[in-house]
Amino acid sequence: MTKVTIGARTILYPLPAVLVGANVDGKPNFSTYAWCGIVNSNPPMLSVSFHHHRHTLKGVKQNGTFSVNIASVELVKETDYCGIVSGRDTDKVANCKFNIFYGKLTTAPLIIECPVNLECRVLHILNMGSHEMVIGQIEEVHVTDSCLTDGKPDVTKIKPFLWAMGQKDQYMEFGRSIGLSYNIGKQIKLPEKKGKVMKTMNSTKAEQTSAHDGTLGLIDTLQQKAKGKLVDVRLDS
Amino acid sequence: MTKVTIGARTILYPLPAVLVGANVDGKPNFSTYAWCGIVNSNPPMLSVSFHHHRHTLKGVKQNGTFSVNIASVELVKETDYCGIVSGRDTDKVANCKFNIFYGKLTTAPLIIECPVNLECRVLHILNMGSHEMVIGQIEEVHVTDSCLTDGKPDVTKIKPFLWAMGQKDQYMEFGRSIGLSYNIGKQIKLPEKKGKVMKTMNSTKAEQTSAHDGTLGLIDTLQQKAKGKLVDVRLDS
Repeated sequence: MTKVTIGARTILYPLPAVLVGANVDGKPNFSTYAWCGIVNSNPPMLSVSFHHHRHTLKGVKQNGTFSVNIASVELVKETDYCGIVSGRDTDKVANCKFNIFYGKLTTAPLIIECPVNLECRVLHILNMGSHEMVIGQIEEVHVTDSCLTDGKPDVTKIKPFLWAMGQKDQYMEFGRSIGLSYNIGKQIKLPEKKGKVMKTMNSTKAEQTSAHDGTLGLIDTLQQKAKGKLVDVRLDS
Repeated sequence: MTKVTIGARTILYPLPAVLVGANVDGKPNFSTYAWCGIVNSNPPMLSVSFHHHRHTLKGVKQNGTFSVNIASVELVKETDYCGIVSGRDTDKVANCKFNIFYGKLTTAPLIIECPVNLECRVLHILNMGSHEMVIGQIEEVHVTDSCLTDGKPDVTKIKPFLWAMGQKDQYMEFGRSIGLSYNIGKQIKLPEKKGKVMKTMNSTKAEQTSAHDGTLGLIDTLQQKAKGKLVDVRLDS
């Protein structure tokens, strides 16, 4: 198996293609982002990285709130469209025929047609270089009722899609299930000590709590040990 | 279309299930993480969030380097296994029959059997609450040569999988392509002014550069405008 180096690139599989929403000058706007992921379980947080000049980012800063809307495959054209045009000169909501609602945070516009909607409150905005990373606390999740099974989001009903970079930059459906997590790996040798099975992958399970308060703090051990650039973080609020 | 609120939860589609590697006390160890995403284009950066006590995190801090390995569907059992057991009492590399190599950073262990391997240098470690978010600069990407088409990573050859949470927590294959990005959205109304089409979704394209230096800095406008918790970030190195 020969390996080829292709340079320092932002390659990751899968990547999301979410519709991030904010009220910009009082008007709902949505744009498409792949630089988005979960960053904390308790409290639940995600990050979205925006180019500095993005119209949606202006609204994120104006309100301190934003939304992350997960589209189904039926909305793939609309999702791509929202990543092609700017809200500065286009009414994306009208052109996509989106219906908007507001939830708990009152200022984060949510798309009815998207089966999953996350309301987020801005916790931190960090300048990473080409992008500003907005860290949002997920304050509420809305799901279209027909996409629930036993009260839980059902991916086979939500029908989300992903974004894959590389030889072609394309959207792809989710395929068939290839195994339950925390389960199929047990076919490989487990430690002899029984009851030693632990969940390493992040989950929302209740046991994964912590005494930490969710604020952005300095990791003590970093100063001495990590060789990267070190940060001293202080909360001003 | 009726919406149901399900509370503040870490719901996002798709999520990755990557094998994050580090040398812990000189020995390569890998664990499975879903809280991982791209956070910056230039320089290329990603984040991985670890529970505080993770064995792999210990190695990340010891070396200031780590790897992100993207498995193909053939390695779904091994990927799940690395998320079930801890490297404290298990030799995951031996039990998964992984072959290891090292690249440019010399201390970030890479899995030969994974078609895509990212070498990362630690830039920042931030305490988010239940998790420590490690931000790494992607220094090099290795791809198995049989997974390239025209020198670019080809998702149909890589055959990665994703992790879907919800009614079942499961791994899923990538499905069929449903459209090229920056393309299929053009079927919806574009702004009248020609040449106004812009790329809003993040990409690695050369035009998306910036004068910023990639360090973690305070966003000036945040102090006045955002309503979230504000951070003043200072580099100590």
